[in-house]
Amino acid sequence: MRLAELCRTTGVTAPTVKWYLRTGLLHRGDATAVNQASYDESHVRRLRLIRALIEVGGLSTEAVAAVLGALDDEDRTVQDVLAVAHDASAPQPSPPGQPAMERVEAFLRHRGWRVRAGSAARRQLGAALCALASLRDSTAPDIGSAEAVAALLDPYADAVENLASAEIANAPDDLADELLIERAVAGTVILEQAMAALRRMAQEHFARQRYGDTST
Amino acid sequence: MRLAELCRTTGVTAPTVKWYLRTGLLHRGDATAVNQASYDESHVRRLRLIRALIEVGGLSTEAVAAVLGALDDEDRTVQDVLAVAHDASAPQPSPPGQPAMERVEAFLRHRGWRVRAGSAARRQLGAALCALASLRDSTAPDIGSAEAVAALLDPYADAVENLASAEIANAPDDLADELLIERAVAGTVILEQAMAALRRMAQEHFARQRYGDTST
Repeated sequence: MRLAELCRTTGVTAPTVKWYLRTGLLHRGDATAVNQASYDESHVRRLRLIRALIEVGGLSTEAVAAVLGALDDEDRTVQDVLAVAHDASAPQPSPPGQPAMERVEAFLRHRGWRVRAGSAARRQLGAALCALASLRDSTAPDIGSAEAVAALLDPYADAVENLASAEIANAPDDLADELLIERAVAGTVILEQAMAALRRMAQEHFARQRYGDTST
Repeated sequence: MRLAELCRTTGVTAPTVKWYLRTGLLHRGDATAVNQASYDESHVRRLRLIRALIEVGGLSTEAVAAVLGALDDEDRTVQDVLAVAHDASAPQPSPPGQPAMERVEAFLRHRGWRVRAGSAARRQLGAALCALASLRDSTAPDIGSAEAVAALLDPYADAVENLASAEIANAPDDLADELLIERAVAGTVILEQAMAALRRMAQEHFARQRYGDTST
């Protein structure tokens, strides 16, 4: 298909597609003439993945480039691609202090979860613990005890443990199938947004039940 | 306390504090001399809330201003503040089409959740459904059937329903206590990040179990 059809099919504007081609996020089409190329389903799929990661997942173009690089690596494993997608889609708060990182470490031991030492999710959780501690008490923030952290986080960890276990059980067996791995990664990033939206809506529902119907 | 001590206590730099004062995010201290003011615990607490919302919650300063405005409104209810915090912290994807929003509506009916029509979380969920549909199939995206949406989302909705119900049960009774409402709102925004981090770590753990220990 021509560029115009690619744009129509995906809803992405021509300048944006051209920019993705220039930056290498999107692979070039087959040249059919000077300044003219032909695109196929692989371009449609890749464009939709890029837009989903940026618009729904909130990734930067740099983060998308990292995820696509991992997807396109011949030697990739599901873990490699997941790790890049996880780290690229995590916020980057300023590094939390040593006490917070030790609480995270202790909590992971308590759950029996094995997680890379450099995982961005560890820093994200540490930063969240620091922020909660600093709000709870306006003296020097500490993170309470390991028991307090476990009491706070266990209900969340129980919930996501069940979900993650099912998600990984449904992940592809065939690591050579780029399409399947692509879907698994996109699902990870997009379903995180869906889960956050569902939690907010459930909170609103229960707040309305508890406090009455005052909001509009 | 003087400005220098406020900065030391909160870890926020003086130019940043001054900028928050100029923009009204932070209330002014008591003037003690020309160009000198005295700050108290209320400034420490507010600064920590602002930093937590920005650094951990990923809110823009505009979004923080909206949340603080709702907190400072004398007539606020828990729902009002939650609604502003939810909408301010939600990503703003391009509006999903009518079919996606109808699927969201049907799913909320199926769950029995009452949610404001204008809630940003509805759009966020609609955008996630659109993105998932477009990746699953490279013809025109549709969102499958209401049954397919329920089969996909029910496990997530079950998990967050339990969490949200407990969260709202723990929310303050005393709607006049600004400190309590402040904590409830910060907890909502910060625990969302903690939950996302936990899900990523649990996925990594189960991926390692399933595919073996190939990542470093």
